[in-house]
Amino acid sequence: MLKIGEKMKILDLSRPITDGMYHFSGDPVPQVKIFSTIEEKGWALTEFTLGSHSGTHVDAPCHKVKGASTIDEVPLEKFFGETIVLDLSYKKPDESITAKDLEKAANDRIRPSDIVLILTGMASHWGKEEYLTKYPYLTEDAAKWLVNSKVKLVGIDWLTVEKFGSKEGLAHLALLENGIPIVENLVNLEKIKDERVLFACFPLRLAGVDGAPTRAVAIKTKKR
Amino acid sequence: MLKIGEKMKILDLSRPITDGMYHFSGDPVPQVKIFSTIEEKGWALTEFTLGSHSGTHVDAPCHKVKGASTIDEVPLEKFFGETIVLDLSYKKPDESITAKDLEKAANDRIRPSDIVLILTGMASHWGKEEYLTKYPYLTEDAAKWLVNSKVKLVGIDWLTVEKFGSKEGLAHLALLENGIPIVENLVNLEKIKDERVLFACFPLRLAGVDGAPTRAVAIKTKKR
Repeated sequence: MLKIGEKMKILDLSRPITDGMYHFSGDPVPQVKIFSTIEEKGWALTEFTLGSHSGTHVDAPCHKVKGASTIDEVPLEKFFGETIVLDLSYKKPDESITAKDLEKAANDRIRPSDIVLILTGMASHWGKEEYLTKYPYLTEDAAKWLVNSKVKLVGIDWLTVEKFGSKEGLAHLALLENGIPIVENLVNLEKIKDERVLFACFPLRLAGVDGAPTRAVAIKTKKR
Repeated sequence: MLKIGEKMKILDLSRPITDGMYHFSGDPVPQVKIFSTIEEKGWALTEFTLGSHSGTHVDAPCHKVKGASTIDEVPLEKFFGETIVLDLSYKKPDESITAKDLEKAANDRIRPSDIVLILTGMASHWGKEEYLTKYPYLTEDAAKWLVNSKVKLVGIDWLTVEKFGSKEGLAHLALLENGIPIVENLVNLEKIKDERVLFACFPLRLAGVDGAPTRAVAIKTKKR
């Protein structure tokens, strides 16, 4: 159990949201525009348009499973808790991550109801066109291994956990059918890979929607 | 100090985000639209447009103070911590909340670096046109009293802490000039009014922007 007090440090695991930011072709184009300024109206206001899966975001079960929970129906307890990082950063672009790979990386550290974050190291390739189709991804058996490990949430430091172009979405299906939301497009996972930390990624309360952007963070408590 | 473990309950303090939701006239109109469906493309996706101050959101200092911090520059530690609610729900619409009112409601419970949430009871009037201009609001001296109490974040259960139509925005100025962000449009504060809880409201990481929507929550830890 972790203890929370004034002595804490919070690390940002979220991607900055900017106008026209990097996204899959065919997805909504992120837009961020000035709406009013202090000079004009006394108050600065901005208008922005995003997809439900733009930037750092959480997939709700109904993203892939018809009739399953929407993002506002997922219990909030899923989005906050003790977390470990599995280091798969040795994987090459377009290489699969299997159940065996995860088991080795986990090395018996996963406890029931943990949040498990997959470090692929891809966050450092952000913005490079060639990686939009090639990146390490979870196989169906890897996703099922996570389900069997009784984790409550899975995260990754790339736009998706799924192999590029998959319509079946078998990794998503395995997790989402079992009520495990997926947080995608995290950053800075390498900074927490050697310790058990508190993680939070409460998504926007978009009513009836298939996912939502979030501000994901790691909370490190200092020794007193 | 609060302890976090598996035994916790998280309460939603955020307003559901819906197409065309209630907002100040002249502000951006919230929009939520289906972008693709599982039937069509194998994946459900949604596109949404919001103002930086739509729904439950955090005001960054630069919302009112030219050149001050943007929402992504505010230290994350401001958005997470121990919280108390000040009950001002006896106030009438259009009545001011003064420093004296806050002092009485606080009854010496505020500790330095606390998050303080103001319960006006207005959340139950959501959607009623007549309250868009009439609601209890903080006076400048009330805001200064909060600054002097060394709170790190202030919240309220209405669209704004400011008197309607104020261009000067003196309550905002007092808080934001002192680096105290403001979380507005909270709900369910009456459910946590009698206890010290953990509160989180990490706003979206909108780069260079004057504020951002957030999923605000209260975390209640159970006795073991």
